[in-house]
Amino acid sequence: MTPEQAMRDAIALSEAVRGTTSPNPPVGAVICDADDVVVGRGATQPPGGPHAEVMALRGAGERARGGIAYVTLEPCAHHGRTPPCADALLDAGVRAVHYAVADPTPAAQGGSAVLEQAGVTTTQGLLADDVRRGPLRAWLHFVRTGRPHVTWKYAATLDGRVAADDGTSRWISGEPARAEVHDLRTKIDAIVAGTGTVLVDDPRLTARDADGRLTDRQPLRVVVGTRALPESARVLDDSADTVVIATHDPDKVLTELADRGVVDVLLEGGPTLAGAFAKAGRIDRLLAYIAPALAGAGPAALGDAGVSTVTDMHRWVVEEVTMTGDDVRVSAVPAHQD
Amino acid sequence: MTPEQAMRDAIALSEAVRGTTSPNPPVGAVICDADDVVVGRGATQPPGGPHAEVMALRGAGERARGGIAYVTLEPCAHHGRTPPCADALLDAGVRAVHYAVADPTPAAQGGSAVLEQAGVTTTQGLLADDVRRGPLRAWLHFVRTGRPHVTWKYAATLDGRVAADDGTSRWISGEPARAEVHDLRTKIDAIVAGTGTVLVDDPRLTARDADGRLTDRQPLRVVVGTRALPESARVLDDSADTVVIATHDPDKVLTELADRGVVDVLLEGGPTLAGAFAKAGRIDRLLAYIAPALAGAGPAALGDAGVSTVTDMHRWVVEEVTMTGDDVRVSAVPAHQD
Repeated sequence: MTPEQAMRDAIALSEAVRGTTSPNPPVGAVICDADDVVVGRGATQPPGGPHAEVMALRGAGERARGGIAYVTLEPCAHHGRTPPCADALLDAGVRAVHYAVADPTPAAQGGSAVLEQAGVTTTQGLLADDVRRGPLRAWLHFVRTGRPHVTWKYAATLDGRVAADDGTSRWISGEPARAEVHDLRTKIDAIVAGTGTVLVDDPRLTARDADGRLTDRQPLRVVVGTRALPESARVLDDSADTVVIATHDPDKVLTELADRGVVDVLLEGGPTLAGAFAKAGRIDRLLAYIAPALAGAGPAALGDAGVSTVTDMHRWVVEEVTMTGDDVRVSAVPAHQD
Repeated sequence: MTPEQAMRDAIALSEAVRGTTSPNPPVGAVICDADDVVVGRGATQPPGGPHAEVMALRGAGERARGGIAYVTLEPCAHHGRTPPCADALLDAGVRAVHYAVADPTPAAQGGSAVLEQAGVTTTQGLLADDVRRGPLRAWLHFVRTGRPHVTWKYAATLDGRVAADDGTSRWISGEPARAEVHDLRTKIDAIVAGTGTVLVDDPRLTARDADGRLTDRQPLRVVVGTRALPESARVLDDSADTVVIATHDPDKVLTELADRGVVDVLLEGGPTLAGAFAKAGRIDRLLAYIAPALAGAGPAALGDAGVSTVTDMHRWVVEEVTMTGDDVRVSAVPAHQD
């Protein structure tokens, strides 16, 4: 196995535990033996459980000795709820550690220095962009800014409508796009919607499989706004936890969510709340499912975002455009990162 | 040269004369000699001039004898303003003719039968989809329906706005997208806008190069609507021909344009006129430049299109999604062709 293949494996392991590790990062690790054969694979366990390196080393056992570890994040050097991963790698006798991204946290960083001092070769940067844009994106943002990472997801027509003139919106996007969103919901910590959307659409805000069954993991449901909800609102049922945050200020929402250990947020609507987040510069990624449909009337995807003239429009950079079923899927990030 | 390469050459020749041949089709032809070496290339000349096959045969001269002709459209069999191309190919002594698409016009079709009867091998279908979707799309539509082909082009933000709240729209899309539209304008017969857009934006509706100079060929400028235009409107200047059609009925517009020999129309706005065309089912292709920008306010790309509920939305099929500069370019056709 080549180093790149091994790191791709580690990234896949990392992706597979997204949404289950916050506030810890979802890390993946692969151990190859001295002959470059994979002998251990691991990923971060839920908070309090072992980190990825330890899980992978447990799988490898004695075969790790003289081998190489591939990790998406620099192994930690601190005693948190678990012992330092750098020590575990030293104890296991690996001869080299490749990690994609350096650990930016003051408490945990320094793992590579510990390893180097003990004679283990370390290299940084292998597939770093894939990791930064992928499984560690939200956590790195959280560490850098202190705020949860916000992905605004919406589904609209080509002319930007999220519903028809009579308010109907089921379904603008196709089944593959909706399935993808349910899959995404299982990978994030919290899903945020406004009271307006809850009152109009009465959404469940749960992650469900193709048969409509709840998936094992459910994100925290967060309803933002000051309008009262009826007790019968689906979002208040017992299929997942729900918090109501009575504010219109995105920063107050994000502070409260950060206090709850939320790192990765999916903002699902509606236009008013999305506009408030856009105006505050609190959308870190945009995920648009543009259905090949024209409505000519109905609410637009985004409400007032503090823009009055073309030069003040919020500008983004497209990261990726793909088709999801019949819909165009656009992933974008702010042109000017704060 | 392989048959496919030769046909690709013919398609490129065909593309190169788009916008200069209406109401005749923009056809391309390549002649290879008996050793598969290209000896002649031609494309349809302006109305009254020679067709593509004749131009290519003129280039080939005696070297056409025993060779193969590659043509985007079945060679015509009729005496119009020029003699039948099938006869010209027979006179030149080619041994085979590959054409992409059969000629659907009652008067001109039958060229392949004439050739076959004279002992020339003919085959149909090589790169037919490329031709149907490409240079002959508008003409084939015109022959099939009797109406000019309408491409609705718009540039909007991700939230579907074609201008900011204060009406400013320069520039929502980037320079590469705008350059591409100017290039497209040189390839169509007429560009259509509503009086509303003319009154608000005072557009020139001309094709210009990167330095702002008029290109050699200008489409007919068509202003649709009943509102009076000031004499100072740029669209009334002498840089290109302009017609004003005082109606709100897309079919009346298209009938008048068909009478003028217009085959290929670019509908450039604004939302009200586009809505009328969408409602009438008279948009045959949609070309959206979606700028990675968010406005949160301002006019939507499409006005009333007769849709009140989600199940009545106009549905499209995405043909192609690409990036043009920083903008997402979506080309789509109606899901249900009339």
